[in-house]
Amino acid sequence: MSYGKIYLVGTGPGDVELITVKGYKLICEADVILHDHLIPSELLRLAKPSAEIISVGKFAGRHTMPQLQINKLLIEKARDNKVVVRLKGGDPLLFGRGGEEAEECVQAGVDFEFVPGITSALAAPCYGGIPPTHRDCTSNIAIVTGHRKNEKEIEIPKAGTIIFLMGVANIGTIIKSLLEAGWPGQTKIAAIEKGTCYDQRVIQGTLDDFLEVTQKAKLRTPAIFIVGKVVELKEKLDWFGKKPRILLPGTHPDKYRHLGIIIHRPLIK
Amino acid sequence: MSYGKIYLVGTGPGDVELITVKGYKLICEADVILHDHLIPSELLRLAKPSAEIISVGKFAGRHTMPQLQINKLLIEKARDNKVVVRLKGGDPLLFGRGGEEAEECVQAGVDFEFVPGITSALAAPCYGGIPPTHRDCTSNIAIVTGHRKNEKEIEIPKAGTIIFLMGVANIGTIIKSLLEAGWPGQTKIAAIEKGTCYDQRVIQGTLDDFLEVTQKAKLRTPAIFIVGKVVELKEKLDWFGKKPRILLPGTHPDKYRHLGIIIHRPLIK
Repeated sequence: MSYGKIYLVGTGPGDVELITVKGYKLICEADVILHDHLIPSELLRLAKPSAEIISVGKFAGRHTMPQLQINKLLIEKARDNKVVVRLKGGDPLLFGRGGEEAEECVQAGVDFEFVPGITSALAAPCYGGIPPTHRDCTSNIAIVTGHRKNEKEIEIPKAGTIIFLMGVANIGTIIKSLLEAGWPGQTKIAAIEKGTCYDQRVIQGTLDDFLEVTQKAKLRTPAIFIVGKVVELKEKLDWFGKKPRILLPGTHPDKYRHLGIIIHRPLIK
Repeated sequence: MSYGKIYLVGTGPGDVELITVKGYKLICEADVILHDHLIPSELLRLAKPSAEIISVGKFAGRHTMPQLQINKLLIEKARDNKVVVRLKGGDPLLFGRGGEEAEECVQAGVDFEFVPGITSALAAPCYGGIPPTHRDCTSNIAIVTGHRKNEKEIEIPKAGTIIFLMGVANIGTIIKSLLEAGWPGQTKIAAIEKGTCYDQRVIQGTLDDFLEVTQKAKLRTPAIFIVGKVVELKEKLDWFGKKPRILLPGTHPDKYRHLGIIIHRPLIK
């Protein structure tokens, strides 16, 4: 019996050109693509005309496909002798459940490969002008998911820079936990909304006023938070914020499509 | 006066296909490339015939160019109206001194951009069959540099998974610091040497025996260490270790060149 193969591929954080060459090539070769909603949608245009493309992520109003069903579908398609590419935003193994899907492959006897992606945890600060590390600031960083079921408190590792993923809904708890862990109220914190996308926003405050500031700014998901001395470097290193806002393919929500905005930089030829 | 521009680009961890499409295109367009030694060397073949390629990294026996001189050269080339690409292994902002080089650009009034790269901190575990996070194991990770001057102790953040970069020379101190931070001696720890390269090695032990195990295995730099419950997933998820060892362009040390090993997978056409 001949089985196909499942590639668990990270697409990177949003800027379509931040996908890896390996991921790019696999999308071109895929027979079946299962994708989350937080991927640069332009990447799907790379697929073969015969490719089957299945959205398993949340779209306006529609529900996400349950994880068990995703697992089942992955295995089913691979057993059909297909090259199956499972696309996930960011990196598949950093709070991306790639490990769980790989376990399913092992259990079903289907070959799999991981293809890492650029995580928004590091790339969003980078596009926000905030280096996650700097020799003058810290010798370690921590990355924390702000999205855990049934958790009232968020455990705060003692690190020089802390980055929170998927924390928009839990922002109050995150701030409270940071203050309780001993971070001073005057500590600078930044939110990077839609990091690396042309409509990225960086919203800054201190732990004392951040809840108010983000409410006023109507901060929306997806966003990451970064806290630590490195946030102070933003004023100096804000390269992306100073660029003209160029709509790149794949970095825009579908609602802008009808505006017919000219795409300035083509995807790889 | 017209100035060029400096791109601070991460090449990813070693597997040549883990560079981003953005980084790939910039290498093709560069007038000048300044590169570290830990980059997939095959990438340099993408450069224009007229490009000036300058190694500023450590090569057998030769010294590294001092950081001040690298900064000076970057600015000088950009002022000469060149497209300057500064290539760094991994990600330029995760212990990569990219922030410092960007500060030099700002001071000199030269435009710059960051281009994130896949960090070995996350990709090496991924190729080692160890997901840095897993829902059953941890809601946070910490990444620590094991390479700090004049440090006797390494500060250990309290996190479910800890990854150490550049720690081979300080392995004794790292283990001692972990034990002092309360990690049990029986905790599993893995070293991933030359992560994502065709000759990657994964060396496993416990905190109690790891120093001995790595000495016996003659562990060499570059390597990352990963410690935490996720290490136990390796046996199940070791996809890369089960693949045939395929020599990819850019993933092999120069010493293998004379063996004339056939390259199985070409770089992007």
